[in-house]
Formats: sequence, structure tokens, C-alpha cells
Amino acid sequence: MEPWLLPGERVEDLQRGGLQILQKEKGFHYGMDAVLLADFTRAGSRDRVLDLGTGTGILPLLLWGRGKGKTFDAIEIQPDMADMARRSIQMNHLQDRMTVHTGDVRDIRSIVPVGSRDVVVCNPPYGRQGCAIPNPDQDRKLARHQSADGLTPFLTAARWALRVGGKFFMIYPAQWMLEAMEEMRALSLTPKRFRLVYPFPDRAANLVLIEGIVDARPLLHTEPPLIIYASEGRMTPEVAQMYSFHPQAEASCGI
Amino acid sequence: MEPWLLPGERVEDLQRGGLQILQKEKGFHYGMDAVLLADFTRAGSRDRVLDLGTGTGILPLLLWGRGKGKTFDAIEIQPDMADMARRSIQMNHLQDRMTVHTGDVRDIRSIVPVGSRDVVVCNPPYGRQGCAIPNPDQDRKLARHQSADGLTPFLTAARWALRVGGKFFMIYPAQWMLEAMEEMRALSLTPKRFRLVYPFPDRAANLVLIEGIVDARPLLHTEPPLIIYASEGRMTPEVAQMYSFHPQAEASCGI
Repeated sequence: MEPWLLPGERVEDLQRGGLQILQKEKGFHYGMDAVLLADFTRAGSRDRVLDLGTGTGILPLLLWGRGKGKTFDAIEIQPDMADMARRSIQMNHLQDRMTVHTGDVRDIRSIVPVGSRDVVVCNPPYGRQGCAIPNPDQDRKLARHQSADGLTPFLTAARWALRVGGKFFMIYPAQWMLEAMEEMRALSLTPKRFRLVYPFPDRAANLVLIEGIVDARPLLHTEPPLIIYASEGRMTPEVAQMYSFHPQAEASCGI
Repeated sequence: MEPWLLPGERVEDLQRGGLQILQKEKGFHYGMDAVLLADFTRAGSRDRVLDLGTGTGILPLLLWGRGKGKTFDAIEIQPDMADMARRSIQMNHLQDRMTVHTGDVRDIRSIVPVGSRDVVVCNPPYGRQGCAIPNPDQDRKLARHQSADGLTPFLTAARWALRVGGKFFMIYPAQWMLEAMEEMRALSLTPKRFRLVYPFPDRAANLVLIEGIVDARPLLHTEPPLIIYASEGRMTPEVAQMYSFHPQAEASCGI
């Protein structure tokens, strides 16, 4: 057994550049939302990237595998998740590029200097469970129990960390996109581009990918629809491509 | 020649219930945006409907042809357009149901009583020309020359006219949707549902259909993507259906 593997964990191949990630054999698995967000994110190969709420560290690995970003900081509040993320980084020999900070995004001022990052990514907690994108029933449940309030600390942290002209990328439930974008704008993380995620071609959107740019003028670009499944169980070519496609990737995510 | 027809005008069949509309032989023709908005609008067969900026009166006729609404008031600032709309109504023998007011939406208080309408529809001026939906080049031009400021009088008029729980439906450039929705919310025309209009499956959205409900709680529903053309020159079945489809309808619109 590998030295970085704890009981109840397994190594998963990310199907790109030989990258691997630790995941628990049971319980939370990183989601398709991380894959969609990594695809949506625009970052140059020299960019300093910060991930707010990294979980098991999936986003820095997916971004690095796509040539997006040079150095990565990641903040995670749960110590066991942060520890898994750190061991995944060691497993990939990326500890010179990637640093995991165990902490609360509310303490951003003691974690990274103001205006020090080019790109911030964020897959904030919004009640998702498992790795599937939320289904309409879950959406309804969320709607009753949650609003966009939980987002504020993440947006505030992003604004602190980004330089002027720096870019922020997030995935969020479509039903709260207006509140999210209004709050982004109030913080000068001007929404510039978004893409709606539709589970099927004839179904309502349930997620939205948003790009904000610090202090940009407000003019919003709406990307082509991102449709996940062409039909039941059959991903669209675009999404299959995001998974680099290896059928196992789909199976392992239990979608 | 029919008595209601002036020189330079022609009668166009709306392909539904024998309804017809007067249009000029040259110059502005009602657009696909009106057809999309009529389809998007939800109105009961007993609803009192108000159209802000009716132009040649296309929306009341399209709504009536779809069984949406019982009585219709329409406001138009240009006297010649208002006159054409009035003559179209006479031609269809609908003068008991439809009233055209020549005037400015800023004078709404002297046109309809406060809280007196169930549904307000609005296809506000946003620099569109001819009948095609704006193409990306036009969008860029608009972006340089126009903001969402022109919308305020229309939203204010809608809020005045609507009863609590009344519904507002609008089509607008996608790039200004955030400003439009924020302003709607500030006026208690809470955005509840929207649908993005994509000219092609792989192109950015250029228009958005928005429903707001007076004093509703904020929870936004995102409808399936509305795609106009499956490929160059070939409408999707959904849009063809909106035109009831008769190939001539497409041809006459010069799309």
C-alpha cells in the first residue's frame, strides 16, 4: 500500500497527464460540478490561482492538468479533507506548486496578501450531495432550506485575494444566480460571462457557471448552453470531452 | 382596396385564427422577438393585459390568437404606429377587446388606473432594426451605444399598472439581463422565470425572456434553452411551431 493512502481511501486516476486524486471509498466524492468549473475557468499558464473551499483538492489538480495556472493555493475548513488534498498533491509530486491551507475563508486576510492572485475559483457548498449535479427534486429541497447567504464569505475572500483585473470563476445553483451576480457586482467582482448548465436539452437549467472580473465594466456575455446528457445515460460529446473521456471516469463518479 | 389600408401598407396573415395585421411595405416589420414573447407569456383567458410600446399592435394580436388574455390595452408613442395598430384591430373586429392609447409610458398614471391589470407585456426598444433577432455584430454595436437605462420608464409603468401577484413579461438583450432583473427586483417586479434565446445551438445567447411577478419571493426558474436555428436557415421545430408553421411566415419576415 502506498504511504499516502489511509484506510477507507482509494486512488483515482483523473484521466489527464497521469494525475491522480485520493477519494474516500464511501461518502462524498468530488462532483461533476468541479469538472464543469475547471473547463469553464480561463487561466493562463503563469497565473497564481486560489481555490476557496477545495475539498479533496480536485480543482487545482484539474486546472493543472489543463495547463491553467502556475501556482495554486487552496483553502479548506475541514482538516481531514485538507489533509487528503495535501496527500494527493504529494502523490502527484506537485508540492512545489500547490499549497493547502486548513482554515476558514473568512480568515483570508491572514492566509494570502491582498491583491496577490490572478485567478480565484470557487465551488461553494450549496447543499450538494454525492457527485451528481443536483436534480430538480434536490433543487426544490434546497430552495426551501437555503438562500444565497452562504456565499458572502467566499465572494468577500475572492475580492480580497484578487488583483485589479483578476478573474473569479464559480459554479452555483441557477435559481440563485441573480442574487449571486448582484452580490458579485456590489463587491466589484463584475459578472462578465456566464453559462447555464442544463441536465437535458429540454429541461430547466440547474447550475450556472459565472466569471467575474475585478472592476470591469458591466456587460454580460452569455455562453452557449451547456447540456450534460443528450439522452438518459448518454453524455453529450462536449461533456464527455471534459472527462477526457474514459468510460471509467463516468462509472467511478456514479452518474 | 380595403378601407383600412393606407398607401405603402399591406395586410399580413398571422397564420392563426384568421388574424391579420397591417405592416408597412418598407421599413420596420414586427420581429421574431414579438413571436417569442407571445409564446413565453402566460396569461389566462380572463386576464386584463397591457402592452407597453406596442408598435403596430403585434403582441395583443398574437396573444389573443393564443387564447392569452381577455381585454387588451396598448400604449404607443408614435402616432402613425398607434394608428396602424388601431386599424389592424378594426380589421380583425376586435375593437371591443383592444384599445390603443397614443402616448408615453411615462404618463401611465393618466392612461390606466393603478393595480388594474393582471398581465403586462413589453418588447421595449433596444435598438433592434428590421425583423431579425440581433446578430452578434449588432449586439456589439448596441453594447457601445446603449445601456439598460431606457428600460426604467417601461418597468415603472408595468409596476403601476399591475395588481399584486400580477405578471410582467419582457424580452431583452441577454447582455443587459442582469441590470434589467436588478431593476425589476428593486421595483418589486420579482424575476421568477427566464429563458435564454440562442440563435444557434453552439452560439452565445443574444436575447432573454423574463417573467416577473409583483411582490413574489425571489426564486428564479431557468427554462430550457430556446434555440432558434438548428442550422443555417433551418428553424428548430419549437420555433417553427410558434409561427404555427407556414413557410410563408418565415419568408415574409425576411429572416
